[in-house]
Amino acid sequence: MLYDFTMTTRTTSTLDLPQLDLPVFEPGWVWLTGAGPGDAGLLTLHAVNGLRQADVVVYDALVDERVLAMAKPTATLEYAGKRGGKPSPRQADISHRLIHLAREGKRVLRLKGGDPFVFGRGGEEALALVAGGVPFRVIPGISSGIGGLAYAGLPVTHRDVNSAVTFLTGHGVTGELPDGLNWPAIAQGAPVIVLYMALKHLARISANLRAAGRADAEPVAIVSNATLAAQRVVETTLADCAAAAEREALAPPCLVVIGETVRLRAGLDWLGALAGRVLEADPLGRAADRRTG
Amino acid sequence: MLYDFTMTTRTTSTLDLPQLDLPVFEPGWVWLTGAGPGDAGLLTLHAVNGLRQADVVVYDALVDERVLAMAKPTATLEYAGKRGGKPSPRQADISHRLIHLAREGKRVLRLKGGDPFVFGRGGEEALALVAGGVPFRVIPGISSGIGGLAYAGLPVTHRDVNSAVTFLTGHGVTGELPDGLNWPAIAQGAPVIVLYMALKHLARISANLRAAGRADAEPVAIVSNATLAAQRVVETTLADCAAAAEREALAPPCLVVIGETVRLRAGLDWLGALAGRVLEADPLGRAADRRTG
Repeated sequence: MLYDFTMTTRTTSTLDLPQLDLPVFEPGWVWLTGAGPGDAGLLTLHAVNGLRQADVVVYDALVDERVLAMAKPTATLEYAGKRGGKPSPRQADISHRLIHLAREGKRVLRLKGGDPFVFGRGGEEALALVAGGVPFRVIPGISSGIGGLAYAGLPVTHRDVNSAVTFLTGHGVTGELPDGLNWPAIAQGAPVIVLYMALKHLARISANLRAAGRADAEPVAIVSNATLAAQRVVETTLADCAAAAEREALAPPCLVVIGETVRLRAGLDWLGALAGRVLEADPLGRAADRRTG
Repeated sequence: MLYDFTMTTRTTSTLDLPQLDLPVFEPGWVWLTGAGPGDAGLLTLHAVNGLRQADVVVYDALVDERVLAMAKPTATLEYAGKRGGKPSPRQADISHRLIHLAREGKRVLRLKGGDPFVFGRGGEEALALVAGGVPFRVIPGISSGIGGLAYAGLPVTHRDVNSAVTFLTGHGVTGELPDGLNWPAIAQGAPVIVLYMALKHLARISANLRAAGRADAEPVAIVSNATLAAQRVVETTLADCAAAAEREALAPPCLVVIGETVRLRAGLDWLGALAGRVLEADPLGRAADRRTG
């Protein structure tokens, strides 16, 4: 059975908030905050509460302008990501900067894309703050590998598909594929694998997984600019994914998801449906299985 | 180096929100929404926007009262979780109810703990809506296995510890441990493993992982009621974790995290520090490694 959504474009610009006790941002503190995948509507109330009080927002490359726009007008916005072809500031430099600002008595919001504790180096920054005697709070964010994929109609778990999912970064300390990954175990351990920052080494990751028994034809989706207006989704296969990324000229930030869950997109692409896509109620063919099985 | 936080208890009860275009909730739609781990401050702006417009909120057991309090005063709150010793409603019954309410022209917010696509059966409910011709939207939430653990000072990734993390449910379709899990591969695939709904089968999971080479002494943390005032954290080991859960009389909801990342809690327990805990800047002993290594 197929059906159509009615396209909805109406938006509301006021959000009537209930009374809620949220913390006061004390001077000299750092709040390590996740900004989520990009869509400003995926900010948490804690993150907005931090943005509305912060004196300085130290933000990364993947934080969207509409998120930064929530800072108070007098706040200083400091960029801590890559600029043009230049390398990113060293992690130690960012940590020193946070400590310096906090010691000046500033309320420092350290704003990171996604969640600070999912391949975000939030733990390292927090330990540097501890060493520097700077008090901090952690505000989790929606991780792109979950919420970003949801905007592409890709669930990271689904009962008919998997009881386990592995999240993996394709980007180690040096920019190379991380050392010490046990590819045969990763390939066989979880039916669904989500890769963060994996575009550069996708050919090697694909080869490693196929050498360990994952099928060439296994479905793969690559999602760039997840949750933003520029979101693009390329559906491909494990054997072809690196070539597909090149053909489609995909550029970071990208998420890659590997596994049968990719087939669910035909039924769950709710954002596509808003733009007219007709969804399928049985994208895994389970009803047919039951009839014939 | 050690330091103390200054205890902060001040809270602010107004949240001055910026202009932001958020969707209008049209009658006859279902919004599948993640409520996050519990703390109402971890709701997203999209979730609050949905709660403020919904006619009916169909919610699960793990959704906190302060979250439900954000629904508009005229909204109907319908409970879809377990009551007392009674079994939960069948998934098909919940899906039928959502379709029925939507066909009555209600704005239906389906509110699930954590994220709807992380062991939340959100995909199943969405496919049922497609089959029923009911349009829907998905609003991701903070998954407990990430944001809940962050409130316990437990990062699911940390550069010195892991480049991969596996999330696993201990609760299959029948309530038993899910079939078809490749325990040797899971044990060797990711240094950090996060278990959802695993309290009941923790002894078997621990035995499976140890049989596959994970060390008896490997650190484990069990977090109950993550992000809520009732949050409790028990630090234990892989060999002892099931016994520890029993000794401490831990009850669901619990998260379990296995791996060296548990040692980081001595440095990252920011919520403990708010209550006076003194944090360590080098909980993994890396500085000593570098001096002596």
